[in-house]
Amino acid sequence: SFSAIALVSSQCSITGLPLVRNISEIPQDNYARPGLSHMTVAGSLLHGMKEVEVWLQTFAPRSHTPIHRHSCEEVFVVLKGSGTLYLASDSNGKYPGNPKEHFVFQNSTFHIPINDVHQLWNTNEQEDLQVLVVISRPPIKVFIYEDWSMPHSAARLKFPYYWDEKCYQAPNKKDEL
Amino acid sequence: SFSAIALVSSQCSITGLPLVRNISEIPQDNYARPGLSHMTVAGSLLHGMKEVEVWLQTFAPRSHTPIHRHSCEEVFVVLKGSGTLYLASDSNGKYPGNPKEHFVFQNSTFHIPINDVHQLWNTNEQEDLQVLVVISRPPIKVFIYEDWSMPHSAARLKFPYYWDEKCYQAPNKKDEL
Ligand SMILES: [Zn+2]
Ligand SMILES: [Zn+2]
Repeated sequence: SFSAIALVSSQCSITGLPLVRNISEIPQDNYARPGLSHMTVAGSLLHGMKEVEVWLQTFAPRSHTPIHRHSCEEVFVVLKGSGTLYLASDSNGKYPGNPKEHFVFQNSTFHIPINDVHQLWNTNEQEDLQVLVVISRPPIKVFIYEDWSMPHSAARLKFPYYWDEKCYQAPNKKDEL
Repeated sequence: SFSAIALVSSQCSITGLPLVRNISEIPQDNYARPGLSHMTVAGSLLHGMKEVEVWLQTFAPRSHTPIHRHSCEEVFVVLKGSGTLYLASDSNGKYPGNPKEHFVFQNSTFHIPINDVHQLWNTNEQEDLQVLVVISRPPIKVFIYEDWSMPHSAARLKFPYYWDEKCYQAPNKKDEL
């Protein structure tokens, strides 16, 4: 069950944060993913959100998300740069198969249909790709694929996700403290 | 029940829209609210979203939202300009009472706690206030107050909301067509 969530350490406390926050002062990290800068603008574990979460992410040229799927909704707004969305929409097969390529560009928006396997790349060698990302039902539960021919059933659950690891505390671990 | 939603007219059809959309080509309207420009970037009725909705709104100087509340979550990201958020957080009283004033500014973010009565004003005489707005559980159901001393029980339900009116079709009306 992912329903019960506790917070650990004062860095993860939702109390004491100002209501209005300067986005440029929000901590950012690459979470050991080269070329990534991630900020949780409004988050479940950091800010007490229950139904939506908002991220600001910057991808350096050639950096990208994993190939992945999730059962929550996801909306992207491209603030800067351009790139390529790879999207495998046929979820009837045993594995994603060849994805369709969609060019994404500054001031464009797109959303990922629920459970469709996808990957966002900064395929523009010249500049960073910056996106605002909205997801539903945080914290996000992600299934990661090694390649597009990996069976859906072999995709690996990554939960908590990179930026949720520090503040997420599994329900049954709570009792041990 | 708001659960069953049908679509009317081809303007409201979610079919045939490209996956990646240029935000500057999304239709905008003021919905008879002076000083407002509203765009539905990713919407329930227009784009088939079920769990989140994203708007881009611009408020001319002195323009504002109604005083209102809703039971969904709402996150703002201020893209341009500045203004004032009025927020009445004590929902234990019979009416909202005097709201707290929060200065909001370019590159700031804030969210509205569920059911807190609030109003956003562009209180900057010099420039437009532009915000990206995220809500959960679309389409939004809003209770509107005439002033801060109106009892919660007297607030008027506005549903469908301004930008949902054209495409929302009430479940029981469907049978009459
Ligand atoms: Zn995703
Ligand atoms: Zn609101």
